Formats: sequence, structure tokens, C-alpha cells
Amino acid sequence: MHQIDTPIPSGHIEQHMRSSAILTDIVIGMSDGLTVPFALAAGLSGAVGNNHLSLIWIAGIAEIAAGSIAMGLGGYLAGKTEIDHYNSELKREYDEVERLPEREKEEVREFFSGLGLSRDVQEQAVEEMTRDRDKWVDFMMKYELGLDKPDPQRARKSAFNIGFSYIVGGLIPLSPYFFVRDGITGLRISAAITLCCLFIFGYFKSKFTDVNPIAGALRVMIIGALAAGCAFAVARLIQS
Amino acid sequence: MHQIDTPIPSGHIEQHMRSSAILTDIVIGMSDGLTVPFALAAGLSGAVGNNHLSLIWIAGIAEIAAGSIAMGLGGYLAGKTEIDHYNSELKREYDEVERLPEREKEEVREFFSGLGLSRDVQEQAVEEMTRDRDKWVDFMMKYELGLDKPDPQRARKSAFNIGFSYIVGGLIPLSPYFFVRDGITGLRISAAITLCCLFIFGYFKSKFTDVNPIAGALRVMIIGALAAGCAFAVARLIQS
Repeated sequence: MHQIDTPIPSGHIEQHMRSSAILTDIVIGMSDGLTVPFALAAGLSGAVGNNHLSLIWIAGIAEIAAGSIAMGLGGYLAGKTEIDHYNSELKREYDEVERLPEREKEEVREFFSGLGLSRDVQEQAVEEMTRDRDKWVDFMMKYELGLDKPDPQRARKSAFNIGFSYIVGGLIPLSPYFFVRDGITGLRISAAITLCCLFIFGYFKSKFTDVNPIAGALRVMIIGALAAGCAFAVARLIQS
Repeated sequence: MHQIDTPIPSGHIEQHMRSSAILTDIVIGMSDGLTVPFALAAGLSGAVGNNHLSLIWIAGIAEIAAGSIAMGLGGYLAGKTEIDHYNSELKREYDEVERLPEREKEEVREFFSGLGLSRDVQEQAVEEMTRDRDKWVDFMMKYELGLDKPDPQRARKSAFNIGFSYIVGGLIPLSPYFFVRDGITGLRISAAITLCCLFIFGYFKSKFTDVNPIAGALRVMIIGALAAGCAFAVARLIQS
């Protein structure tokens, strides 16, 4: 589904955070992998004659190769960009705290004022917080800019997890086409398997993000069905 | 590139935030649209005979249809999930503040303690902040759980922006195949145009996220080239 984000489940329990990062990667990779190759194969099954059935899986595997590299390296790039961005902002904050301490103190005060603290407590808090320059900059990064220190290992791991999940997800809808002799039969089996997988997948994903599991499962399944239906229709339309 | 995230550019200037959300959507949709259909067409150009050239753009357009729906609706779903998740956490926080006020106060105190404030100021700040229940819950949502109130309109707009950008991006690498009579010529023109676009695109994207623009542009271009090269190689391998 090329998801931009899956909110990381409730931060209540800190130790769950690491495993949820991996699960998020798998969710991202697999939901795309299930949906796009499925829809592509569905589209081609309506457009390719039964003599050229091999084209469905050539195209499908080419798509899986392209998609997993683009997604995996895309994830890596996004992680790298996040680190570069964090470091450049960090440098800027140290610089600002150095050059314009009064303005930066005022920003800290505004933060405490926004929390509804009295002027008196604001002043004291600013006074105490800005004593340690590292803590001060750390505070500005986190609460002014909303940036958390990214894990430098994360980019590489994330790339692998997403790319691999895309391949696994993509091979599921494609596999029936290896065993049939006409495209429409392949499409029927592929649709049955993939829509089941999308449902199960959507179910666990929704549980995981505290959303009604059945509603979430149906949403994910319907997106897959729509994408495949549209690809099928478009391919038929062009070919005729 | 199926990017998971592109860090929103420096939060220094608040009014830039809304336009950057649209730009983020366009970046996400277009980088995928440029990369995946490009690589798929490249893969097929090596596997399909010149008599079946139309299959390249049938597959390409089926992929664009599938990808734009999956990405657009995927973006919509992610936005909806974010809203549902926010609301369920909000309910939980109100509930906890009601049932376990002392534990929740302790969590607020820990936050201020983490900032390096003295015990005295911590107590005062907690006292003042927890007087207004709405402000208190708002604080817990933002700083304990790191959740910002999502814009309910955002999900729908985001779906449209991403899906549309994917279509625009995808038609660029595909267009040369309409005008040529053999796949390899199409691939050459498509590669030249698309790699230029990816470079320009990566350049502006990097400027926008405060990263060295030339390095960023090269990274984006190389991912596209790798994806296409791999799809081409895999398709050739299967076909032979």
C-alpha cells in the first residue's frame, strides 16, 4: 500500500518500540508487495493471450525486483536523509544557542508558557534548564523541532526488512500463474489467495495499531481489490 | 521510491508546514512513479519481442493504475488509521487521568525531571499543569506519547496528491515506448529522460530537506538506475 506511516503502537511500553520498528517495516513492505504485483498480474491476465502467459510472471518478477529495490533503497535513503537532517539541525541549534542565547531562552520560556505554567515557574524552569548547554540543545531539538535522535543502524536494517518483505509479499499473488494454463484461471486463484492474505494481514495490522480489526482488515482487502480491478479494466481497455 | 518518510523541513517557520505537507506527498508519489514503472518497462523491454511492444505500455499503464490506487488509498488509510489511533489514545489518557491521577502526575514530574529541573520547580510545574484537565491530557498526548492531533481533512487530500503524483511520475518513463518500434530504443530514451528527471527531482528534494543537493540527486538517480538494471537482468534471465 506504499504506506507513508503506520503509527507506532502506543508508546506506553518502551521496550516494545524496537520490535515495532521491524513490524512497521514488514507491514510497509508486505502490504505493497501483496497489492501491486497482484494488481499488475491481474491487469496483464486480461490483456495477454494464453500463449503468452509467461509474460505475466516475467512482468511480475521484474516488478518485484524493481519494487523491492526502490522500496528498500528508498527506505535506506529516507533513513540516511533523516540522520543528515538531524545532524544539520543539531549544528544549527548549537550555533543559535551560542549566538542568540536570549532569543533561544525566550523560545524555551514560550514552551513552558504554552503548558500553562505561571510566569514565575516559567522563569525558574528556563533558568535551570539552560544551565547545561547539551541538555538545552537536546530540549530544543526534541520539543521545538520535534526531532528524535535517529538510530544510525536503523537505515540499513530498515532497507533490508522492507525490501525482503516486498519480495515475500509479491511472490504470493504471482505464484498461481506458474501452475495454470490460462490467465483468467490464474487470476481467480491469485485473487482468492491474495484477498485472504490481505484480510489476515489487515486484521493483525489493525490489532497492532489499536483499530477495529475487522474494519481494518476489510479496508486493506478492498484497496487491493480496487487496485487489481482497475488495473484489469485499464489493461483491457487499452488492448481492445 | 516508496519512501516511508521525508523529514518535514526545519520546523523553524511554522507557516511553511502546510505547504510542505503537500510537497511531501508529491515527493512520495512522484519518486515512486518515476522509479517503478521505469524499471518495469526496462525489464520488459529486454524480455518482450518487438512484435509485442504494446505489452510494455499495457503493463506500464496497468502498473500505474495499480500503484496510484494502492499508494493513494494507502495514504488515505494511513491517515485514517492515524486519526483512529489518536482518538483511542486520547480516550485512554482521559481515562487514566481520571482513574490514576497520582500515577499520571508522577509521569508529568518525570518529564520535568528529565529536563534537568530541580525537585522544587518540578513539583510546582506539575501542580500548575495538572490543574486544567484538558491541558494535562494534551500534554500527555504530545510529550509522553509523541502524538500530534492529526488533521481530519489531511487523509483525503494526501490520498489525492500522492495518487496523482504517481500517475504524472509514471507517465514520464513510459511515454517513449509509444513512439518507438523497438524496445531497446525505447529503453534508451526512457532511461535518458527518467534519469534526468530523477536527478532534478532528487536535487530539489535534497535542498528542501537541508541535505547536500548534488549528493542527494545522485543517490536518487542511482536507486532508479539500479532498480531498472535489476529488473532488466531478472526479466532477461527468466526469459532465456
